[in-house]
Amino acid sequence: MPSFTVFKGTKEGKIEEATTTREIGHDEVLVRITHSGLCGTDEHYLKAGMALGHEGAGVVEEVGQDVKKFKKGQSVGWGYQHDACFDCKSCLTGRETLCPQRAMYGYANLDQASMGHFAVWKAAFLFHVPESMDPADAAPLMCGGATVYSALASFGAQHNHRVGIIGLGGLGHLAIQFAAKMGCQVIVFSSTDSKKAEAISLGATEFVTTKGKDKLETQPIDHLLICTSFQPDWKLFLPIMAPGGTIYPLTVSNDDLTVPYMPLLAGELSIQGSLIAARQVHRDMLEFAAFHNIKPMIEEFPMTTEGITEAFDKLRDGKMRYRGVIVAPTDAKLQ
Amino acid sequence: MPSFTVFKGTKEGKIEEATTTREIGHDEVLVRITHSGLCGTDEHYLKAGMALGHEGAGVVEEVGQDVKKFKKGQSVGWGYQHDACFDCKSCLTGRETLCPQRAMYGYANLDQASMGHFAVWKAAFLFHVPESMDPADAAPLMCGGATVYSALASFGAQHNHRVGIIGLGGLGHLAIQFAAKMGCQVIVFSSTDSKKAEAISLGATEFVTTKGKDKLETQPIDHLLICTSFQPDWKLFLPIMAPGGTIYPLTVSNDDLTVPYMPLLAGELSIQGSLIAARQVHRDMLEFAAFHNIKPMIEEFPMTTEGITEAFDKLRDGKMRYRGVIVAPTDAKLQ
Repeated sequence: MPSFTVFKGTKEGKIEEATTTREIGHDEVLVRITHSGLCGTDEHYLKAGMALGHEGAGVVEEVGQDVKKFKKGQSVGWGYQHDACFDCKSCLTGRETLCPQRAMYGYANLDQASMGHFAVWKAAFLFHVPESMDPADAAPLMCGGATVYSALASFGAQHNHRVGIIGLGGLGHLAIQFAAKMGCQVIVFSSTDSKKAEAISLGATEFVTTKGKDKLETQPIDHLLICTSFQPDWKLFLPIMAPGGTIYPLTVSNDDLTVPYMPLLAGELSIQGSLIAARQVHRDMLEFAAFHNIKPMIEEFPMTTEGITEAFDKLRDGKMRYRGVIVAPTDAKLQ
Repeated sequence: MPSFTVFKGTKEGKIEEATTTREIGHDEVLVRITHSGLCGTDEHYLKAGMALGHEGAGVVEEVGQDVKKFKKGQSVGWGYQHDACFDCKSCLTGRETLCPQRAMYGYANLDQASMGHFAVWKAAFLFHVPESMDPADAAPLMCGGATVYSALASFGAQHNHRVGIIGLGGLGHLAIQFAAKMGCQVIVFSSTDSKKAEAISLGATEFVTTKGKDKLETQPIDHLLICTSFQPDWKLFLPIMAPGGTIYPLTVSNDDLTVPYMPLLAGELSIQGSLIAARQVHRDMLEFAAFHNIKPMIEEFPMTTEGITEAFDKLRDGKMRYRGVIVAPTDAKLQ
């Protein structure tokens, strides 16, 4: 049974190096990790005492006896692992992220581990990384990319729609690229204009600042992706929604969602919960990203206690431009 | 120019009889009113100083010079009249209820008038009532029926879905019938079991009481129609939503909508604003109702100041079973 280094959060929220020992099940794959993205949601696991990270990229090292679709040496990636039953209505209709076996109303049952030297992962939740894609770029697509792509791809966004994106950060800077390459007009909302040039270079059509405004000047928005870690000022955004438009809260929040009621009703607006992508959507995302050369803007940190701590600090301070990637040592060995 | 009796609300919220004079425009129809439904939303217009009622049924009396599709003597019905442009994206895609020319964030610009002896109405917003349908039954379908049918028909409800209905009243008792005839399992939620037998007789599969409960026992609900005049206890209802399910707040409320955030996200639930039906949906509703003999349970009141006042009082007290219909005098004449 292989033993290897992983990085966990302590009860106090510090990063600590640990060793874990895992059997490689008949349907599992041992992966040598090369990169792990750092996602805002990692903060919520920091005190959970588990191996951190859910944006993994690496190389297949060994496969379980029943695994046919992966071979040693292949480039792979992974996000969360669900405990899907493969037999319920959600699983059988391509929405296995909604399988009741996974944690419906919390994240406790979602397995993860991409901050470490190796990981053992179910083949069913492992993805081939397209050949043209750098694994450092692939890692942040495994949650961040999949989250924004799934919102756009799963709930009716079309090429002739206007897509609004609130917040230019880890999610937002990927959402701009995906929406633009889908042919949409992309309108970025940000508190100040400090990120305007970058938004435009990523594919944004318009850039609208919100600070101090009590009314936003833009044409109606069909799909609005909330990519900030806090809820927006709804009174500012509901009036610019197109009739029948859809709003996607994409980031984790413990607050209630409080929205003015009548504008929602009268505009036939929809507030659509949207999670990480189901597996086919995830595959489509990787293919689309590779085809259009969509990639995150990343800052690299070494995969050490200090490196990971520094990355968390930078993300927490709102200084990451735009996705932290933790780089594993190339000479890591099983213990 | 015809002059005729209408019933308005005064600034103090009393019902008063008045006379109005209206030209019959080239694209308009003069209708002799036979029945008007009474909808909870009428309460919101009571102090607006306008002719009341938006669930009309009657007989064509005269048509404007350009009106081809209606003839004197035909049975017709109408709900709200929108000021649609017939040229915007909403209008051109069959969603003319969302035309920006109509009042997006309020009801002030919605014309109405079904409590009176006659009405002049645009032919474009007038509907043929199927021959087999009693006009007294047709009236409540013009808003109440169209509202619940549109929620079910416009946003993906299917025969194999479980449809939950909160509140057995004017909307709810119609929603049960429509959903049941669409082939759905229908689960009615009501505070006590006083209406259980009636719900089952209307087509409900299950009846779940909510009073004093901190957990509801039922299988997952795919579509949940909120047919009460107040918002439900979300903590009770979110856990019984099926993954990917949709919630429809159907009644007017001036409160904010406040919903626990994470269950919405993790279940990929959607809160879908839904209005009165677009015209083709409204026609489909009438045809479906006629084919399946769907009809409201009504209580009749005379179309007089006293009769209308009594109906409003009964509705306000929660005593209406289940839709009030105001019956116009059969010998009403133009003045």
